[in-house]
Amino acid sequence: MRCVSCEGRYDGDDAGTCKQCHEDHKAKVAFLMTTHPSSFSDISLSASDDEEAAGPVPAHKAVLVSRSSVLRAMLENEMEESLSGIIKIRDVSYRTLRAFVNYLYTAEVCLDEQLACDLLVMAEIYQVQHLKNYCQKFLVSNLNLDNSLSTYTFAHQHNAKPIIDAALTLIIDNMDKLTAQEEYAELKEKDPQLVFEIYEAYLSKQVNKAAAQKGSSASYPSEYAEEC
Amino acid sequence: MRCVSCEGRYDGDDAGTCKQCHEDHKAKVAFLMTTHPSSFSDISLSASDDEEAAGPVPAHKAVLVSRSSVLRAMLENEMEESLSGIIKIRDVSYRTLRAFVNYLYTAEVCLDEQLACDLLVMAEIYQVQHLKNYCQKFLVSNLNLDNSLSTYTFAHQHNAKPIIDAALTLIIDNMDKLTAQEEYAELKEKDPQLVFEIYEAYLSKQVNKAAAQKGSSASYPSEYAEEC
Repeated sequence: MRCVSCEGRYDGDDAGTCKQCHEDHKAKVAFLMTTHPSSFSDISLSASDDEEAAGPVPAHKAVLVSRSSVLRAMLENEMEESLSGIIKIRDVSYRTLRAFVNYLYTAEVCLDEQLACDLLVMAEIYQVQHLKNYCQKFLVSNLNLDNSLSTYTFAHQHNAKPIIDAALTLIIDNMDKLTAQEEYAELKEKDPQLVFEIYEAYLSKQVNKAAAQKGSSASYPSEYAEEC
Repeated sequence: MRCVSCEGRYDGDDAGTCKQCHEDHKAKVAFLMTTHPSSFSDISLSASDDEEAAGPVPAHKAVLVSRSSVLRAMLENEMEESLSGIIKIRDVSYRTLRAFVNYLYTAEVCLDEQLACDLLVMAEIYQVQHLKNYCQKFLVSNLNLDNSLSTYTFAHQHNAKPIIDAALTLIIDNMDKLTAQEEYAELKEKDPQLVFEIYEAYLSKQVNKAAAQKGSSASYPSEYAEEC
């Protein structure tokens, strides 16, 4: 069958939901999306570059605590943020903060590579796993030879296992091209451990390949070998 | 393919989403569900039988206005409810009100026939179409000979087209049994228009059936007719 969401073809174990149930699910998502800060806001979030931008982003404590365990702890324990009515978010641009808050209300965001990285960092800090997964998927689908080393490094810094795995596979499949890159030279200087990890994965692949080749030639049908 | 939600079998045009996209959708729904009145409540809803029960149901204006256009109008226009902080819900039990508010936060409710009817009425009054659809589906799936006339009458009172259609089909397929019921005698007294509608639908079915039989006998193969 053909998936109406991702348009891939699926059969047997990969087949999921019929059209009607899919429509029901979509309607449920639409129903549950909360119109973002329309009115009755009881908290604001302010970004580092607040003064240049449109001021703090209004929000509702009830929604924030429901989506993020970190924000829940901040707001329910009457810390400074809860009392002042403003949560100051450091080292985050207005654009990222706005997208982050909007995601908490709608589970939707239009990503580019920079925004995906920035939101993944925020999602990790505020423990919003759903957003972290979303950013990870985007970054995996945007992997290419040019960004593989930098994405790999970034993923390691933020404990993003799916990205690490995907980037490593791409890297060890293209070792010759990547070792010629400037990023490779920089990485050797900045984080030799990561380079060792790459070489170890590459080595392991080579060994497995050699073993597989040996295995397949060992199991070569003997009668056919004689014929040859 | 087999639907993992409703377990029906679907092919071609009815096939919907692959397993992965279905899992993604489920995660999105779980993410968007708001933990119901945990804290930071800024409004309450009180039921008719409030004194006997657990007091008013706490809620958040931001969620209510996002789910119901009627509640939005009440709360955004600073009507009495907004100023007093209490929305009085007339002719509704505490159990129904609690389920209604909970549905606004989670899009989930465990229905029985009575609760489905009560919530359908609330959903119509407060313009929560998603809940109305949910109750309609439940009531259609619970139709049987015993409740078909009463459900049909109820559906007419609340403009529930899918229930009207399903009940009418069941009724005209079992006219002989249903006209013997006490509810039928009562309906003739209380709402003759509905009884006319039933007879007109029954008549129309009979006419179509006769036309179809005539059509099929008219196209009877002539050579075979001669043989006979």
